[in-house]
Amino acid sequence: MVGAGNLAWHLGSALKNAGYEIEKIWGRTPENTRKLAEFLTSDFTLDIKEIPDSADFYFILVPDRRIQDFVHSIPNKNRFLIHCSGATALKVLEGGTDHYGVLYPVQSFSKELELNFSQIPLLIEANNPENLIRLTELASSLSEFTYEMSSENRVLVHLAAVFANNFTNHLIGIGEALLEEKEISPQLLFPLIAETVRKVFTLGPGPAQTGPALRNDQITMDKHLELLKNKPGLLNLYKELSQNIIHSVNNGC
Amino acid sequence: MVGAGNLAWHLGSALKNAGYEIEKIWGRTPENTRKLAEFLTSDFTLDIKEIPDSADFYFILVPDRRIQDFVHSIPNKNRFLIHCSGATALKVLEGGTDHYGVLYPVQSFSKELELNFSQIPLLIEANNPENLIRLTELASSLSEFTYEMSSENRVLVHLAAVFANNFTNHLIGIGEALLEEKEISPQLLFPLIAETVRKVFTLGPGPAQTGPALRNDQITMDKHLELLKNKPGLLNLYKELSQNIIHSVNNGC
Repeated sequence: MVGAGNLAWHLGSALKNAGYEIEKIWGRTPENTRKLAEFLTSDFTLDIKEIPDSADFYFILVPDRRIQDFVHSIPNKNRFLIHCSGATALKVLEGGTDHYGVLYPVQSFSKELELNFSQIPLLIEANNPENLIRLTELASSLSEFTYEMSSENRVLVHLAAVFANNFTNHLIGIGEALLEEKEISPQLLFPLIAETVRKVFTLGPGPAQTGPALRNDQITMDKHLELLKNKPGLLNLYKELSQNIIHSVNNGC
Repeated sequence: MVGAGNLAWHLGSALKNAGYEIEKIWGRTPENTRKLAEFLTSDFTLDIKEIPDSADFYFILVPDRRIQDFVHSIPNKNRFLIHCSGATALKVLEGGTDHYGVLYPVQSFSKELELNFSQIPLLIEANNPENLIRLTELASSLSEFTYEMSSENRVLVHLAAVFANNFTNHLIGIGEALLEEKEISPQLLFPLIAETVRKVFTLGPGPAQTGPALRNDQITMDKHLELLKNKPGLLNLYKELSQNIIHSVNNGC
């Protein structure tokens, strides 16, 4: 494993549970790398030249823009090289080994929170049909939900995940911050947040939509805009989101 | 109960479970009003003049902009008049009876989905201390979580709820629609959506934030913008949300 971040913790743990041995971990920061190696009972190194040439699979688990830098660090052209990035094409792995692929888990990982890896959808792609079979075997030992997906579609899933996770999390944060500013407990919103997701899963987001923008209730929206008048960023965001909801009602998404 | 919409279904049911009798329901549409009356074993009428003068509490459960129209429809100045709107001030109830208040449930209601009303936060306000005591008694019989809150703060909670529910639901809808357009199952996003909420509840939205905007990862954001280039509404929304996340990182919310 090249990298010792959040995903390395979760993937490493899932690999170990599936019976794989993590031979060695390369990391940039001594403390994190050592901790992860302890957790996975693996060796570790801070020197990329010390990557062993004997592993079956090499996972590159570094930030997207750095993936390509490690393609030529794998010391054996017969080894299988894998990256796990949603927004990065398969082809960045070209030029190193003859065997490469992508295994993208559609999930948001934090070191602090345990996850049931077997329930995470894994999107896989490989550079030829034989390697796709090998990668499918590997992925199936980690999760019940594995799907073949092209680089082109994978980045779309990544974009959809940004809307469904990054942006929604940010908006919930805005809601909580608005309350905290007036010393109102953000926990007031918790039952509503839980219900939001239950409605998405049971009714779907279309029928679940409610609120002033959906009803084009300008009186209520004006009251909200008045509360945001000294927060230009939030004011714009409120207008843009409301406009987009009104537009969706009239034209579909 | 004046009104026979989603909230009337849930509130009526909670009142009945708490031992109250629903004497009569007024509604605009015969079919919905009759169904709700059956469900609550209550009388109903389509003529606002037929509201009885004998009830202890009168709930006005109509759209916000219509609440004021019904203030003078309550035939007895000694009766207790209540509206349930988050964004509407207490004072719209002035001028009819001497006893009035607000009971705002911080939740999103759909007729199709049962809810445990006892877990819904209820924000209450009344026109004098005696009436606040009466309303507190009523609210406490419906929910474990009742809080006194001014009209000024209540509309702020309503605004926060729009961010945490209406807007997040819309963004999840956008994510799902992006996938459906390419015939990719939106269920791919379900574990991620569930985890988003779990992280909000356990870590809080600040530490839970991830994604390209948080990292100011322009390469990934450019890939996403490319995918949205023919969808000007979503393109703007993506830019606005990403900018707002980047700004939050640098300046707080």
